Amino acid sequence: MQALPGFRDFYPEDCARRNYIVSVWRDVARRYGFVEFDGPTLEPLDLYAKKNSGGEILGQLFNFTDKGDRAVALRPEMTPTLARMVATKSKDYRKPLKWFCASPFFRYEKQQKGRLREFWQFNADLIGEGGPGADAEVVALAVDLLREFGFGKDDFVVRLSDRRAWQQFLADRSVDPAVLPDFLSVVDKLERDAPEAIEARLGEMGVALADVRAFIADGGGAAFDALFAELDARGVREFVQPDLTIVRGLAYYTGLVFEVFDRSRKLRALAGGGRYDRLLADLSDGACDLPALGFGMGDVSLGNFIDEVPAAAARRDAFLRSEAGAEIVVVIAEETQRAPAIALAQSLRAAGWRTDYSLVPAKVGRQFQDAEKQGARFAVVVGSEWPVVKLKLLATRAEESIPHDALVDRLKSHHV
Amino acid sequence: MQALPGFRDFYPEDCARRNYIVSVWRDVARRYGFVEFDGPTLEPLDLYAKKNSGGEILGQLFNFTDKGDRAVALRPEMTPTLARMVATKSKDYRKPLKWFCASPFFRYEKQQKGRLREFWQFNADLIGEGGPGADAEVVALAVDLLREFGFGKDDFVVRLSDRRAWQQFLADRSVDPAVLPDFLSVVDKLERDAPEAIEARLGEMGVALADVRAFIADGGGAAFDALFAELDARGVREFVQPDLTIVRGLAYYTGLVFEVFDRSRKLRALAGGGRYDRLLADLSDGACDLPALGFGMGDVSLGNFIDEVPAAAARRDAFLRSEAGAEIVVVIAEETQRAPAIALAQSLRAAGWRTDYSLVPAKVGRQFQDAEKQGARFAVVVGSEWPVVKLKLLATRAEESIPHDALVDRLKSHHV
Repeated sequence: MQALPGFRDFYPEDCARRNYIVSVWRDVARRYGFVEFDGPTLEPLDLYAKKNSGGEILGQLFNFTDKGDRAVALRPEMTPTLARMVATKSKDYRKPLKWFCASPFFRYEKQQKGRLREFWQFNADLIGEGGPGADAEVVALAVDLLREFGFGKDDFVVRLSDRRAWQQFLADRSVDPAVLPDFLSVVDKLERDAPEAIEARLGEMGVALADVRAFIADGGGAAFDALFAELDARGVREFVQPDLTIVRGLAYYTGLVFEVFDRSRKLRALAGGGRYDRLLADLSDGACDLPALGFGMGDVSLGNFIDEVPAAAARRDAFLRSEAGAEIVVVIAEETQRAPAIALAQSLRAAGWRTDYSLVPAKVGRQFQDAEKQGARFAVVVGSEWPVVKLKLLATRAEESIPHDALVDRLKSHHV
Repeated sequence: MQALPGFRDFYPEDCARRNYIVSVWRDVARRYGFVEFDGPTLEPLDLYAKKNSGGEILGQLFNFTDKGDRAVALRPEMTPTLARMVATKSKDYRKPLKWFCASPFFRYEKQQKGRLREFWQFNADLIGEGGPGADAEVVALAVDLLREFGFGKDDFVVRLSDRRAWQQFLADRSVDPAVLPDFLSVVDKLERDAPEAIEARLGEMGVALADVRAFIADGGGAAFDALFAELDARGVREFVQPDLTIVRGLAYYTGLVFEVFDRSRKLRALAGGGRYDRLLADLSDGACDLPALGFGMGDVSLGNFIDEVPAAAARRDAFLRSEAGAEIVVVIAEETQRAPAIALAQSLRAAGWRTDYSLVPAKVGRQFQDAEKQGARFAVVVGSEWPVVKLKLLATRAEESIPHDALVDRLKSHHV
């Protein structure tokens, strides 16, 4: 019996890696003044109607009918849930809302590197502020998340575009604004489709391919000036490149869109998001009309990226070492002292130390071996000298004798 | 559009309460030397076959057929996943395994107080050790979890029984051991069914009701002596009462079973578990034959219990206050200084402070109001005195002027 394809068993070492990622997400988001929220794992299927999600996502739903005859689906993304929650209670909160979540999501995808059917995703959204300051705050958060994982500007890049730049491009050429979705789908495939086919499709819209290429090469001209000034103030301008070929599939984006890639382009996008100023109003029939933007960052590509960049892997591994197993192992060298040894272990636990000991009689050498396998920093030996015990630092083998009731205080000086 | 019945939207204040519960679970379990694991949210339906789960759980599954024609189910409990994982890789780990998880589970239950269809549950399991020391370690963890939430011995009690005590009871009376499951189902309903019906059912097994009642009143005699000595050593004996009427429905228990209740009995069981020494061998066709025990504690009853006990609610609320919102708000009193003010905010974030500021120009009074609404400790005012800024302690309104590049160091002395 195995886990389903695309689903993971998190053995302790796997769970620690996942928890490391989630803890960095949480820590950096909170430093940016974002607060955590979450929604149900299972949602009404209707929440993922066409206007709320992309067509690709709809084909990948884990959906079914529940025992109460409701059409339901495991959540494939957070934005529709967030939009529902905000539309329901937006009046209760000070604007802008700065909300994040770090939760599992589900998509029935073909299995391939960087894609699983259950994955953890960080989402951060800033709601109620429409200007370049809000855009920059969200991009800066994405950059600082990756910096906190140990990645530098030679490791990753944020590529960004803006749907309004292309809107303006079309308007300047007196092209019908209704062609924008079709036009963007051509831009999205500019590097993949045959030039003749592209030229033909653009020609139908009244646009020349050379003109499109020139606009892209120009980087959107002045379209990003205000944003770049804001990014400069936040010290993250050097991580960002304008790239007007970035489209992102989701129908609900209205302005800034961005994706984060490893510089070597070996991996899928590490993060992606954008501005969706009309989604809240659409979902609430106009009752809640707030500008908004956000992005998501999944744990799978990110985990692969950490594996590939030595500085990031070293930072993670240092965290894992500091978090693994017991810090103190109580070695019971004299079985007649088992009861006071256990009481001592309990007092260490009550003082906040991760403490373990053998539940059954075992040779002293075996107990020390276990302490080292757990990566413990200290062994406390309870033997015939009770009420005096021995405190050993396992790294240096330094040891001292100390009354058992002075141990907790003595250890305080060792707290890291 | 709403969440499904029995599912929760976690607005930030709700999410913080859930995160508080999960963080206490994690913290105390790790102090006991338990390490975190997790499994998939979705599992093959077969994993919850009759022998692995109880009959009640099977009727409450969210199960369906996925796009690959697999019969699948949202996990209703952790033990079958744990058993599969351990049976697959038990040789890779030092024994005993001390594993915990804190994850969402799903049951299609009738809605009532203390029951939801998606709930978070803490599970701790100790695998590879069969004696009373292991039993006591797990019971002590359950007790210390509740103590860490702020509950005392007048608030809750652990009621425990042992299937082996009833086995011995039947053996001493030369009753066929095969009746044990039926016999236990009678014991389970001793206080609810009519005495005549009970007497009749017991009579068919060759057991007298008075004899059963006398055994219960005796508390199982010497059956718990070894366990109680171990609980004494751990300082938790006073939280535990023998109660041979505790049965627990699950088919896989083989020894100790226990449930934790609030003393006032207003709520459902706060936690429950027991020993299941044959489940791993059954699941692995004998390949992995390890004794095991564990328990679960859900977030719903526990959350209600915290609300009801003032000491526990006060402890939670202190945690929530310390974790909410930004610690520092940068007040931009002079818009021409916005860029350096943002750079200063970024340096505070980089130093680990939860820092926020207005993304758009706003009146100084409004910015201070926002700082207080967020529960910030400090305001840093950036104005015409730049590069000197004002640091204000919001609680006392004390303030000092300080060069901006000395601020991070100055704040270190305020770190809690």
